Amino acid sequence: MKQPPSPALKLHKKLRGKITTSLRGEVTDDTLKLFYSPGVADASMYAQSNAEKLREVSWTNNLVAVVSDGSAVLGLGDIGPEGALPVMEGKAMLFKHFADVDAVPIVLDVHTEDDIVAAVKAIAPSFGGINLEDIAAPKCFAIEDRLKAELDIPVMHDDQHGTAIVVLAALINAAKITNRTIGDMNIVLAGAGAAGTAIIKLLHTYAGPQMFVVDSKGVISTNRTDLNKEKQQLLDYTNKPGIDGSLESVLAEGADVFIGVSQAGLLSADMVRTMNDDPIIFALANPTPEIMPEEAKKAGAAVVATGRSDFPNQVNNSLGFPGIFRGALDNGVTAITDEHKIAAAEALAKLVENPTADKIIPGPFDSGVVEAVSSVIV
Amino acid sequence: MKQPPSPALKLHKKLRGKITTSLRGEVTDDTLKLFYSPGVADASMYAQSNAEKLREVSWTNNLVAVVSDGSAVLGLGDIGPEGALPVMEGKAMLFKHFADVDAVPIVLDVHTEDDIVAAVKAIAPSFGGINLEDIAAPKCFAIEDRLKAELDIPVMHDDQHGTAIVVLAALINAAKITNRTIGDMNIVLAGAGAAGTAIIKLLHTYAGPQMFVVDSKGVISTNRTDLNKEKQQLLDYTNKPGIDGSLESVLAEGADVFIGVSQAGLLSADMVRTMNDDPIIFALANPTPEIMPEEAKKAGAAVVATGRSDFPNQVNNSLGFPGIFRGALDNGVTAITDEHKIAAAEALAKLVENPTADKIIPGPFDSGVVEAVSSVIV
Repeated sequence: MKQPPSPALKLHKKLRGKITTSLRGEVTDDTLKLFYSPGVADASMYAQSNAEKLREVSWTNNLVAVVSDGSAVLGLGDIGPEGALPVMEGKAMLFKHFADVDAVPIVLDVHTEDDIVAAVKAIAPSFGGINLEDIAAPKCFAIEDRLKAELDIPVMHDDQHGTAIVVLAALINAAKITNRTIGDMNIVLAGAGAAGTAIIKLLHTYAGPQMFVVDSKGVISTNRTDLNKEKQQLLDYTNKPGIDGSLESVLAEGADVFIGVSQAGLLSADMVRTMNDDPIIFALANPTPEIMPEEAKKAGAAVVATGRSDFPNQVNNSLGFPGIFRGALDNGVTAITDEHKIAAAEALAKLVENPTADKIIPGPFDSGVVEAVSSVIV
Repeated sequence: MKQPPSPALKLHKKLRGKITTSLRGEVTDDTLKLFYSPGVADASMYAQSNAEKLREVSWTNNLVAVVSDGSAVLGLGDIGPEGALPVMEGKAMLFKHFADVDAVPIVLDVHTEDDIVAAVKAIAPSFGGINLEDIAAPKCFAIEDRLKAELDIPVMHDDQHGTAIVVLAALINAAKITNRTIGDMNIVLAGAGAAGTAIIKLLHTYAGPQMFVVDSKGVISTNRTDLNKEKQQLLDYTNKPGIDGSLESVLAEGADVFIGVSQAGLLSADMVRTMNDDPIIFALANPTPEIMPEEAKKAGAAVVATGRSDFPNQVNNSLGFPGIFRGALDNGVTAITDEHKIAAAEALAKLVENPTADKIIPGPFDSGVVEAVSSVIV
């Protein structure tokens, strides 16, 4: 039987798009000669071969491309460029709403590392920044690395770094509440994809805690023979004791924190009970978390965060990317560094003056979020 | 000595861009879940692998990319992507102003035929149409042909076809005033680039007049050994008598019409005097025409058109592209054909109810232009 359209699909069909273009000046007989031929030639000559001068006379000073090949969209997987566009247009909408950044969704009909890099490089002079989005691991890592190296505008894969920044912000306040320091924590992370990898790297740089990563085959260890290059690199930051085992077994060996960027229902209440006292549970799988908050709390969790807006402590990328690109564009920052990410996380954590178990991070609509983040991207 | 900035450059520096993005709906706690995760997943699944359904739920139904590699920008030549962007952003502004079409300037940092085709194909699912602009001849021909063949959205190189459409419109009314029929005309065209080639082809399809093309080396004829493939193809439509010679000599052999898409000052009053009685002069070089209108008139021209807004009869692409893409987007037209171009030219010519020597085409701000053109793109 055919399902009736959902409220979200209905709204999309009604609006027929979420963004549009507008004009910054009035087009008249007089201005037409200045905005377009022949006057525009002066702006063109001024900007020729100079991206910085171009930003003085064009919208690139406020413009980000939201780029995806549709290979890992939300929890939907590889749904291609057409499937990806509504999400990228939604992200463009959030860029505008939260940070007044102009953003254009660009979905790609190419899917290899080389082709994606080539396409983004080809169009890069059109933009002031590149937000990579929903590109599958592991190709997302090399694509971002190469574009960062080869372009002189800010490039950020938000699934990696946006998520990592907000997770770190949340963890800073969760540590405060539970009287821990992050450097002394034992952290178990489930999900060795784009977000998980970036979280591990940022936490390592921030404080070097004890960490373990679990994928669908168990703990990532030197004994595993099935690891791709990216998962092998995670061993630089994790599993110092060199143990093997399952999520269940590694949690029982003194874990303070569970971070899930994996799948619905992965974490059981029984597993939570085997963790250290007052465990911190970030169950970030969308739309259904690794464990529901009420269940985690009943099992003893001191703090629970999810990716959802209908529970407290939403770990939401909207807290990060608008301010990060706002700051980068305003301050002429051409590379988002680890220092930027840490400063952004600290700024977000600090916005919550008195963290409680139900309020470790700001909400996306809280005032001051974009300003707090953008002011540290310098 | 340093020149003070021109009014056009000043305006560009003041506005820091000519277009911006706006939102079609309000972002609130409630709508965020519909516009973005998790609700947007419904729109994504609906649109997956289906560009037509994507147009129902995204801005692609109203969206054109204005694409250039900056290799032939205005009269400035190869000024690269940064130099091109202010022009493309200006064109995006005109798309919005005249036809309410959302347009995004995309400048390319690649310059070979293959690389440009690859880049445009890669980003094509993001758009509802592709306006190619200011790409040098002869590569522009193959690029457009390949993209038209390989994409299922409308692709048009405006320097070619937009110009040809408006020239044909102007010529239809100039013929009326001078009691000629286009099929019986003897037409000399100077400038065998993108615009010139497209004008020749469209006039041939429309009425098959006698035509000659002159480039910097003289009349294009079968005796020339220096012709590239594109110029050789012009011989299918021109120079049936097989003559050689200069612009001067070919004009003196019974020319009714001079069409210049070449360079400032190419046409002298003496040459005009050798043409048939009541000659038609379209001196379209920008910003300085092949001959100034007053000079042409003194030498006997019955009708003069230029590319400039400060003289009567401005042959201006703004008369064409907004309505063409408006019609294509609204009517689901995936290829702009010769029939469309001719119908658009006839519609434009018809808008001038009583053509006179000083009014053979509408002005870009005249009412009804976009509607007249868009209504025939079906």
